[in-house]
Amino acid sequence: MQFNKKQSQILNDIIIARRDIRGNNFISKKIKKKHLNKILQAGLDAPSVGFSQPWKFIVIKDEEVKNKVYKNFKKEYDKSKKYFKNRPIYNTLKLEGIKEAPVNIAVYYKKPNKKILGQTSQKQMGKYSVVCAIQNMWLMARSLNIGIGWVSILNPKKVNELLDVSNEYKLIGYLCVGYPKEFLNTPELQTMKWNKKMNLKTTVTYI
Amino acid sequence: MQFNKKQSQILNDIIIARRDIRGNNFISKKIKKKHLNKILQAGLDAPSVGFSQPWKFIVIKDEEVKNKVYKNFKKEYDKSKKYFKNRPIYNTLKLEGIKEAPVNIAVYYKKPNKKILGQTSQKQMGKYSVVCAIQNMWLMARSLNIGIGWVSILNPKKVNELLDVSNEYKLIGYLCVGYPKEFLNTPELQTMKWNKKMNLKTTVTYI
Repeated sequence: MQFNKKQSQILNDIIIARRDIRGNNFISKKIKKKHLNKILQAGLDAPSVGFSQPWKFIVIKDEEVKNKVYKNFKKEYDKSKKYFKNRPIYNTLKLEGIKEAPVNIAVYYKKPNKKILGQTSQKQMGKYSVVCAIQNMWLMARSLNIGIGWVSILNPKKVNELLDVSNEYKLIGYLCVGYPKEFLNTPELQTMKWNKKMNLKTTVTYI
Repeated sequence: MQFNKKQSQILNDIIIARRDIRGNNFISKKIKKKHLNKILQAGLDAPSVGFSQPWKFIVIKDEEVKNKVYKNFKKEYDKSKKYFKNRPIYNTLKLEGIKEAPVNIAVYYKKPNKKILGQTSQKQMGKYSVVCAIQNMWLMARSLNIGIGWVSILNPKKVNELLDVSNEYKLIGYLCVGYPKEFLNTPELQTMKWNKKMNLKTTVTYI
């Protein structure tokens, strides 16, 4: 299959329009099963080292479970505040949407019980495959006008406990999924000058 | 910006048509600078934890450098053969395209010298951001009918030495980039029944 310029441009538009969506932006509108399945299937269609597909997805709608995960976020967030004392805006940021998003998805890496093709020199490769799945899901969601926020301020072992997941599985990403009020044109942290957007000149070297 | 069904379907087509391309499939046709830049820019437009953009790209065309990297692959591949004695087909697989691809890209994670927003509870998050960049690049390349193969059978510290990169940078992905003869409809490892393709039923749990 050959793609044309217009199709490549659409991919570029989706990549550029993707945002990290937080709880101050999610609305309560439900996600249709068929759309949720499209997002999950995009994960399953990601590349994986040695075609190992080492992923496992837990879709969470249970409010009690979400509340418990939120409590863990709050604890970890409070602990992190000491690192950003010189940037007081940190205390005002909304950094997750666990309770506001109608759906949460915990994305796991399943540790292998045998040697994996392509993973013999760098054992973290399987985890990277799971991240490829998450990025596919994020883009697919955006193309369906559904927002995703990746919550990383969590204690992964604690999340395993709360979701009753054995330690054979390692949490890679905890995703909040729902329709947002809006997709901002620019990442919020860029607008508030937390960091500057990088460019090709400063990030690419040629040899 | 709102996307429609047709645009979402195009993303899906690109996701499904993406393959891992190896040296038995690359042709020597050069990649135009503007297309290479589109691929790299898709990496720069990936999500990153705390908008940290912790990536660094080294574009390699130097044949001598590529030969040295290939030698490291060969060494690591030979070492790995002992793990797959029960699957003799492993010895016949072409698992990289370092020398055949006109362009190689080493994608690095730059270790931070300060605390990163979102990376306080799980320090591997920055590396995952770099993987999101790679997946964006992979899809962008596919939309331009350019193939990428991710070589993971490498000793990352040795690659740093060969590319004269300091250990402040960690190799995440080593990509071979070029036009392929063809994009197979099905992943090669699926066709040869190395593993079965997984489905939603066996990989998704609901709570």
